[in-house]
Amino acid sequence: MHRAIESAALGRFTTSPNPNVGAVIVKDGKVVGEGYHRQAGGPHAEVFALRQAGELATGATCYVTLEPCSHYGRTPPCALALIAAGVKRVVVAMLDPNPLVAGSGVKLLQDAGIEVESGLLQDEAIALNPGFLHKMQSQRPFVRLKLAASVDGAIALSNGESKWLTGAAAREDVQLLRAQSCAILSTAQTVLADDALLNVRSVAVTPLENGQIRQPLRVILDRRGRLTGKEPMFATGGDILLIHQTGLQLPEIDSAVVKVQRIELPVNLEQRFDLEALLDLLASKAINLLWVEAGGDLASQFWSQGLIDELVLYQAPMLLGRNAQPMLPLPVFCSISDAPRWQWQDVSKIGDDLRLIARLKGQ
Amino acid sequence: MHRAIESAALGRFTTSPNPNVGAVIVKDGKVVGEGYHRQAGGPHAEVFALRQAGELATGATCYVTLEPCSHYGRTPPCALALIAAGVKRVVVAMLDPNPLVAGSGVKLLQDAGIEVESGLLQDEAIALNPGFLHKMQSQRPFVRLKLAASVDGAIALSNGESKWLTGAAAREDVQLLRAQSCAILSTAQTVLADDALLNVRSVAVTPLENGQIRQPLRVILDRRGRLTGKEPMFATGGDILLIHQTGLQLPEIDSAVVKVQRIELPVNLEQRFDLEALLDLLASKAINLLWVEAGGDLASQFWSQGLIDELVLYQAPMLLGRNAQPMLPLPVFCSISDAPRWQWQDVSKIGDDLRLIARLKGQ
Repeated sequence: MHRAIESAALGRFTTSPNPNVGAVIVKDGKVVGEGYHRQAGGPHAEVFALRQAGELATGATCYVTLEPCSHYGRTPPCALALIAAGVKRVVVAMLDPNPLVAGSGVKLLQDAGIEVESGLLQDEAIALNPGFLHKMQSQRPFVRLKLAASVDGAIALSNGESKWLTGAAAREDVQLLRAQSCAILSTAQTVLADDALLNVRSVAVTPLENGQIRQPLRVILDRRGRLTGKEPMFATGGDILLIHQTGLQLPEIDSAVVKVQRIELPVNLEQRFDLEALLDLLASKAINLLWVEAGGDLASQFWSQGLIDELVLYQAPMLLGRNAQPMLPLPVFCSISDAPRWQWQDVSKIGDDLRLIARLKGQ
Repeated sequence: MHRAIESAALGRFTTSPNPNVGAVIVKDGKVVGEGYHRQAGGPHAEVFALRQAGELATGATCYVTLEPCSHYGRTPPCALALIAAGVKRVVVAMLDPNPLVAGSGVKLLQDAGIEVESGLLQDEAIALNPGFLHKMQSQRPFVRLKLAASVDGAIALSNGESKWLTGAAAREDVQLLRAQSCAILSTAQTVLADDALLNVRSVAVTPLENGQIRQPLRVILDRRGRLTGKEPMFATGGDILLIHQTGLQLPEIDSAVVKVQRIELPVNLEQRFDLEALLDLLASKAINLLWVEAGGDLASQFWSQGLIDELVLYQAPMLLGRNAQPMLPLPVFCSISDAPRWQWQDVSKIGDDLRLIARLKGQ
């Protein structure tokens, strides 16, 4: 199952919005087939593994990181393929929370006389698909907030200078995490101030079958319609979804490179978008994992509303001192017990910087 | 040598001001003797190992983490003991920078026909004795600054509330690091505001041969002589050195438990002590490793003067928000390149918190 999980991870840059799944077929103590799901519409992991195993699949054990599907989607049900191949035993790391599957894959197998076990390395299997699982369970995307700050939590000096706080290795790591997201959320302010492209440029990212990198959808909050289509981001990367306040009557933007869509969302009395409505909108567009990369203002709105599922903080080994700009302009707390506590999930050295990953305590 | 380094570390709570040293004697591929230096005035590591090896030391190899001494101190030279025991080969991890030794131990051995190698696992051996080595090289104590802050670098809310930012495991870890220091530096302000004891209370600390914990000297900056001797710290822990400005004419403090000494140091125009003069004073009192645990004001004086050798930052998984009190009230930087860059030495999860250890980049 370790090997199946490693296989599954090979698809992490390309499967969106499908989950990462890996399968390994073992016969007489030897691996005879192995596969992973590579991209939506393509064969599932089990199918690749069965193809490789050929006749050796008969009487073999199949380890798979997610319950085999039982429904006809863009491909036929994997459970039937396993039955047809004469597999004797199936070990699944976790059941599929997709209501179209949810135990019925296991049941199909069992009804065909196949021995099924589940739960082996379940935590590792869960970690493969934070977006897919969160969306299945809550109907909302998993929100991963990216921050980069000094050890004293500043993102820029009081005079605005912010280049370069973190190093090249951290910026490359951001590329890899962007590439594992379904969409990247930012603001017109960030696009205009930094000429941000918000696309994936790393050569370390596995491409799609057509040789291209899968580019996450770029979702830009542009309340007042300031983006013109002339900004560099419109000449690169993935499709763009511009979110405006209602009633602006903006012209369409034609780009030779990307599809640009405008959507209107209402704003509240403080002239801010309703972030929950935004998440619902993105969920309806098959966005499972949302990477938020913008200024402190948007980040603190997500924070204050409790909408952050995971914090990814790159911490540069320096202090920026007094009056520097805080990464999150949070409210003033009256008591330490009022400040939410996080839980470190992972701490890694990335070049000279640290990458701290945290989730809210108790989640 | 790995084993000798592990042995050496067993003395880390007790050897001050002597270095941590470990020795392992190997004959025919088997460990026949092992020892470490436990406390000043007691036998050196090599002597313990030779005692254990007995006659088996003849023709054996001795691995020792620091060059054997060649001078008569409180104990006779270990180099002579190794020669007398008939050891055939000595492997040392590093030469002793002590000018009383500095290669003469190796020379003594070589002159007696013993084969000597040096440099094996030198970095690990250096890491055993940051204080001892720094003091030998610079005539100043190694300064380790302890900080505890939130992820946004705050030590308390704007209303002063600071309990408890970090958890019990981090506070226990502080005990272990205090116990590895020769002295603890703090201020009368910290003693008065927190009823701080600044002693070592952990049961995880190896005691001295008399069963007591070796308590680091407590050095308290009490410029205006505010401490009366009635504070709880005078009834516990290690000896106390009170540092006052000149000319105060304070009465002696008698404590049944600890020895209290007053020393006067001049202050500058800003009514602050000259920290370099303070470090020189402490060096003259055999303080190799100084643990600084006080408020942000003293910490930032050390910082601004470039006197911090190592930063130990406990980071609680929370953000304290706007107007919280910064861990280091630093000056305003005009450019990011003006802010000193640190280098992470070690990052560990301690309970729910992180412990980040850093040194100035390039040191």
